[in-house]
Parts: sequence; structure tokens; C-alpha cells
Amino acid sequence: MVSERHKVALAEILGAQGVVGDSSGMAAYESGARYDQGRAALVLRPRDTAAVSACVAYCVREGISLVPQSGNTGLVSGSTPDASGTQAVLSLDRMTRIFDLDIDNRSLHVDAGIRLSDINGRLEQSGLFFPVDLGADPRIGGMLATNTGGSRFLRYGDVRKNTLGVKVVLADEAGTVVDLMSGLRKNNTGVDWKQLFVGTSGTFGIVTECVLNLERLPRQVSTAYLVPRTAAAVMPLLRMMEERLGSYLSAFEGMSRNAIGAALAHVPALRNPFQNGDVPDYVILAEISRSWAARADEQPLDAVLETVLAGIWEEDGAPLADAFVGPAHEMWALRHALSEGVKHAGRLVAFDLSFRRADVLAFCDWMKAELPREFAGVDIFDFGHIGDGGVHFNLVAGNASQVDAAFEQRLRDWVYSVAVDRFGGSFSAEHGIGRKNQAYYDRYTQQKNKDLAAGLKRLTSPGSLGSVCFG
Amino acid sequence: MVSERHKVALAEILGAQGVVGDSSGMAAYESGARYDQGRAALVLRPRDTAAVSACVAYCVREGISLVPQSGNTGLVSGSTPDASGTQAVLSLDRMTRIFDLDIDNRSLHVDAGIRLSDINGRLEQSGLFFPVDLGADPRIGGMLATNTGGSRFLRYGDVRKNTLGVKVVLADEAGTVVDLMSGLRKNNTGVDWKQLFVGTSGTFGIVTECVLNLERLPRQVSTAYLVPRTAAAVMPLLRMMEERLGSYLSAFEGMSRNAIGAALAHVPALRNPFQNGDVPDYVILAEISRSWAARADEQPLDAVLETVLAGIWEEDGAPLADAFVGPAHEMWALRHALSEGVKHAGRLVAFDLSFRRADVLAFCDWMKAELPREFAGVDIFDFGHIGDGGVHFNLVAGNASQVDAAFEQRLRDWVYSVAVDRFGGSFSAEHGIGRKNQAYYDRYTQQKNKDLAAGLKRLTSPGSLGSVCFG
Repeated sequence: MVSERHKVALAEILGAQGVVGDSSGMAAYESGARYDQGRAALVLRPRDTAAVSACVAYCVREGISLVPQSGNTGLVSGSTPDASGTQAVLSLDRMTRIFDLDIDNRSLHVDAGIRLSDINGRLEQSGLFFPVDLGADPRIGGMLATNTGGSRFLRYGDVRKNTLGVKVVLADEAGTVVDLMSGLRKNNTGVDWKQLFVGTSGTFGIVTECVLNLERLPRQVSTAYLVPRTAAAVMPLLRMMEERLGSYLSAFEGMSRNAIGAALAHVPALRNPFQNGDVPDYVILAEISRSWAARADEQPLDAVLETVLAGIWEEDGAPLADAFVGPAHEMWALRHALSEGVKHAGRLVAFDLSFRRADVLAFCDWMKAELPREFAGVDIFDFGHIGDGGVHFNLVAGNASQVDAAFEQRLRDWVYSVAVDRFGGSFSAEHGIGRKNQAYYDRYTQQKNKDLAAGLKRLTSPGSLGSVCFG
Repeated sequence: MVSERHKVALAEILGAQGVVGDSSGMAAYESGARYDQGRAALVLRPRDTAAVSACVAYCVREGISLVPQSGNTGLVSGSTPDASGTQAVLSLDRMTRIFDLDIDNRSLHVDAGIRLSDINGRLEQSGLFFPVDLGADPRIGGMLATNTGGSRFLRYGDVRKNTLGVKVVLADEAGTVVDLMSGLRKNNTGVDWKQLFVGTSGTFGIVTECVLNLERLPRQVSTAYLVPRTAAAVMPLLRMMEERLGSYLSAFEGMSRNAIGAALAHVPALRNPFQNGDVPDYVILAEISRSWAARADEQPLDAVLETVLAGIWEEDGAPLADAFVGPAHEMWALRHALSEGVKHAGRLVAFDLSFRRADVLAFCDWMKAELPREFAGVDIFDFGHIGDGGVHFNLVAGNASQVDAAFEQRLRDWVYSVAVDRFGGSFSAEHGIGRKNQAYYDRYTQQKNKDLAAGLKRLTSPGSLGSVCFG
């Protein structure tokens, strides 16, 4: 527990505004975006790296457990306190001051508490943006801790690929600050320590500042819905698109009929874009984009996409059953509504899986055949990022009362086992690890890797930090 | 020392062909590509991961020091034995069997001993390639251990960005094999351990196999020489090129007059491409490329480049003094000859530095003013990768006798101090760490990072492995 003495001492370090101890003030920090509900002993809100260091040092010396929290938009209970009421939340929500653009280096130094939307809003004038694109609006520190991916991974990669530097506070008795902020693109002078703090849920240290790689903002965008002839045609179609459009291709997203149907049924603003309203079995949203303004000597981008699709259409055994170019904002609106639609389709059990690219459809096909035999009444509402092998594999029980805790547990165990053991996939593609999937980390991680992680934890942050245990 | 008993035991593990103990046979493994000359106790040549594991386990148990060696093309004495004659070289040169292409996943599983040229030669039919492009022809294991960058970093990134998986043998008594070979593009299930084995000179383990990301092979290429109006115009020029050409831009390489002059003087096949043979102060080689075959509805790529350059030319205060599009192979031939030319210009002291992008030219300008005052008779022959902030900063003394060991030491200390302390740069951009720059690692690495590295070494490979010490 955190005594009054500690509250007073921490308020001296952080100022009165920096410590929240009353239950109404703490409520917003205690529950996650979708799933969890815990109880905090205290919420700490430092304003800069020095303050993080000072309060971490205090907490480690006094044996107070810390859970770092950023935008708290994650889906694996990685940033909320458990139910014990003994953990203090260290929130980054006041760390929003530094915003230092290096336009020549195409890089940005920011405090870890700035929201993604603020970063890209403030960058717009410069023609640059941070290219990791998500449905949620997290703060950047949490994006690093999760290594988020998103819909344009195919073109730009994940957070890891777009991080040039981090500043980290370790949970040791000194609150050691590790400065890895060179912002260099090429630098091979030993261990690239920043990699350890990306995607590890804040367990090994708290990222307080970072240097981000920026890309040129797209100036021309064209999108199409592609209907593959069969599930087996999706990979040939992706290969043909990559072959003919190369670096233009910025998204290749798959949407199942069930997911589209749920969005159309439950998200009122959407228009059904398909002929006679007949939703195909599977639809690809393909996006191409260019980062420069249209030039007079170039075909408009819609025409480029139409030409390429016509070329694919004319091939012998073409993988396309149908294709049409349409307004990007409308086409993306449907894609972005899938998650909301699926939530309303029944009792949802969601999985964030990834595979080698060809195995996304193979896995879904296998599941279509086997799931009804194992779990009658449960349907598949999948959609995902075919271009990078990620799939949001959503299972929905129309009859919610069917899904009690034991049923969900059995279902999760079975799906993860098929994904990991049979298909060599990942049980967390882009959501990271938190309390919610800790058991699967424990199950599917090689013992040697756990031993290494336990050793690394002792080396970096021996204090109690974070909501997961990698050791 | 390695006794006869050990040689017999290791020959039992690896077969007679797997152990080289005679001095003529070992000679090829004892000297580096440019600098060093050591002495090996023995050379071990395993054929697969299991054999690496078995001989590493034996050596760790028997206290035999191992230096892993891949293509041995590095420039920092990272892969050769020291002069003691007590270290055994573990060569990857027979690890060339596995070559497993996953065309849908755009990935390739290979043994670590395959050469870069073999990889790309065998891939050519598929229309894919491994996009880390170098002057040398290393084996892939060494490329991972060095995290090589090269001339197309701007478009494709370094080895780190293009590595999807590794298999590693640790130097412990079991020769533990760590399998990180999922080949997934999105996978956030804890520590991404493969990052620790990239760019760390084989100190923490020997990469024996890997899964590489592949990209579409360029099908259209256009190049131009750009002459910036002043050194200060280089960054605006890069910004304009990125703004107007986006992902087309695949190289933006800087070449100083001295470096070009040395190549023209010493590499006979080259033609002087400049009007009246007058080499400008500084020249940019810009390359744009597309990964698809030319379509009838598109401008040819040379015309695109000419249009964009004409647009830049017409801007108020345009950063260009001159520009001309020319044949890619000729333009690159000059670029690739710079290194050879500089070697013949006098006594060479070479530096592989990197900076935030704007600081490459700022550093070179500063040096042009200050170097003559500190080291008379030494001239700057720089060239480099402006697009990613890397510069091969070459110093040449016309009078070779001026450069004795003490002079070189003083010169190195001074240059690195300016690069790192004054400009916040890196003392090893893309060559990694070996015996040659160990002292600068020791000098410029924060103590905390050394402590972490020492701890990591104990955790992973407590046996004597590699030619450097990060702790």
C-alpha cells in the first residue's frame, strides 16, 4: 500500500498537481480502453524526464510498484493497475512539452505523452508525418511500448522501424536515465539498446522522450475494392499488385463478408458499395499513394490504378472476380467501421494474430472448416492486414449466454494453439503483451528466452515496473 | 593454445574437412580485407547449425577462444584473430546449403555463409532481391553482425530493417541454439531478441541462419549528377527531391571534388563526365527507380527526373548550379571507384562517420577550415550517403612519411572528438565495432551501457567469443 507519508513525499517531488490520490480523480486511469478494470493506489503525473526519474527512484527505494500508462488505448491490459489496489500508475499525460522538428533530418524529438493525432496535426504544415497509422489515438510512449503496426505497415513499417532514438528511465534506486537520443539513421557502435524498450510494455524502463522518423505526407491517394476470385487468389493478387505498383502500394487490407455485413448493419452512416448490395465473400481494400503533388505530365493516380487493375484483369486465370476504384474516404470509412460493427454482432472474442503472409487466408480457411465442429454457434468475422500477415481474427457468438469464462478460455486456448502450433503464427501481432495475454506468453515462449528476459530485467529495471512478467 | 587433443576432438565433431590447422591453410583466415594481420590457433568450418553448436560447446567447455568469421570483408578487424595465436577462427564459409524462398511472404531463409552476390544472383528470376547494397561482397552472417547500410539505405534501410528472423548459437557450455526464425513481419510477443545479434560483431552469439525480407527488383532506373550551388544548398536540394519524388528516390550520394579527382586519376576505365573536365566542388549522384516494367501510359523515368530537375531549376533561389541525367552504370561507376581512387591518392586515414543529415556538410565545412591548422599536409577526400547522414570521411597525406603511428593516433582522436563531441555524430556509421575501433567504443560509450552490455554478455555467451568487448 502507499501510505500518506509516500503521498506527501511524492507531492514534494512532482508538485500537488502531479499526484492524484482520490478515487474519483483516479478512476480514469484505472480502466482500459476495452477490457480491464483495476484499482490504483495512486496516480503520478510527472511533467518531464527529470521528474520521472525522481519519482521512479523514490518508488523503487520505497518498494512501490509502478505501472506506466500512456494513452491507455491498448487492448491487452498492459497499462492499467491490477485489482490489488497496491500499484501506482505513472501516467505520461502531462509529458507533452517537447516538440522539436528537424526538417532536414526528417525527424522529430517529442515528449512521450504527446498524442499521435497531435503529432500529425502539428506536422501537417511541414508536409511530413509519423507514418504509423492506427484506429485509436494513443500517446507516443505507449506506441513505442507496444510497437504498434497498423494499416500502412506494408509501406512504412512499424514503430520500431520509425524510431531513431529514445530516452528511458530505468526502475532502479537511482532512477537512471539512459539517453539514446542521437537521432542518427546509421549508427553501429555496439548494442542498439533502444530496441529493448520497443514492444516490451514498459517492463525494462519508461520511455520518456523519443526521436521519430518522419515520412513525406501522401499528396495523392487512390483506393479500390478488389474481389478475389477465390481465397487462393488473394496471394497471387497481392504479388501482382506489388509487382506492378511497387512502392506506390500503401495498404492491402482484407475484409470478410461477415465483418463487412456487421459494419453495414450497425454503423448507420455507411453506404453499401457493392452491386445490388451483395457483399462478396472477401474484399481487399487496396490503396496506392504518392507523396508529391500531381504533375501535368503524369496520369492521375486513379487512372494509374485503373490501368494496372485492367492489366491484371486481362491476364489468363486472373485472380480478380471484380474491382472498382472509388473515393478513398468512403472506402476507408467501411474499413475503419469493421471493428465497431463486429462489437455489435454478438458476444465478441477477439484475437490479434499474424502469420507468414500466405498463411492468413490458409488459417482462416482451416478455421472455417474446423471451428463449427469444435464450437457450434460461433462465427468468424475476420479482417486484417494481408500485406504484412496480420489478421484481426474475431469470433462472435450470436447467443451471448453461450460464452461463459470457461467457454472463452477453451476457445482462446484452441485458437492460439492452432495459430501458433499448427501455422507457426504469433499470438500477438501488434497489440503487445499485457496481463490479458500473459498466460500465452508463458505458454509459447522458449524457456531460454524467458531466462534471458529475467536476466535483462535484473540488469535494467530491478524495481517493480509494468503489468507483465517476461521472465 | 589449442592442443593436438583438441584438434582431434574437433575433427571428430566437424569431420576432417571441417578443421584447418596448417599455417598455409589458415593464412586466408588470418588477415582482413584492408588492415589487419593476426594469427589463428585453428580454423573451424562447420556445415550447419548443429555442427556450430557442437563445436562451440566443445570450445567453451575447453576454454578455447572463438572468433566468428563470415565473408571477412569488414574494415574494423571484427572477424580476424589477434596476434596471440591462441584464438580459433569459426568460419561460416561452408554454411551455404539452405536457400528457401517464400515468394508470397517476400522472404528468404538462408544459411549465414551465403554471399550477397549469390543471394541476389539466385533470386533474380523471382523479381525479388535483398536490398542492402554494398561495394564489397560479404557473406550474410557478417552483414548481420555488422548491420551494413550501403548506398540504397535511403529507400530500403539497413540489414536490421530487412531481417525477419535469425538462428543463433550462444557461446555457453551447451552451445545453446536460439531459434528466432518465425519470419513474421508483425510479432510483438516480448523482447525482440534478434535485435541483439544484429550489429554486435558476433559477441553475443553466432548467427547461423536467417530469414531476410526481400524487395521487388528495380525495373527502371534513372540517375543524374546534381551540382549544388553551395554546400548550404545540399539540404534544400535533398528536401526538394524528397518532396517531388518521394519513394522513387533510391540514392542521394555526395562526392567531393577531391574524391572524384582521385578516382579519375587512378581508375583508368573512368571517363570524366563534367564539362571541359572541370570537376565541381561537390556533386550529388541522385538515383530514382521503379520496381515495375515501364508502361505505355507513363513517362519514361529519365523524363520524370528531367521534369523534376527542371522544376527545381526554375524555383527562386534554386539550390542547383547544374544538373544532368546520364546512364546509370556510368554514373555509378564513378561513385564506386571513389574508394579505390582515394586509396591511391596518398597515405589514407579513413573514417566511417554519421550525423544528423544536415550535419554531414556542416562537419565537412568545419573540417575544411580547421584541419589545415591542426594537421598541415592532410587533405579531405570525403564522399558519402547524404540521404542517411553517413560520410566516408577520408583523410590523405600526400607525403606518406608524415603519417607515423603517433600522428595517425592523434589525427584519429581529434577527428572522432569533433565528430562525436562537437557534432553529436557516430564514430562508426556502418562498419560496426572490431579491434580497430574498440578504443573509441570504450571512450564514447556511456558507462551504464557498458554495464548493461557486460551483463548481457554473461547472460548470452559467457564463453570467449568475438574480437571485441562491449562491457
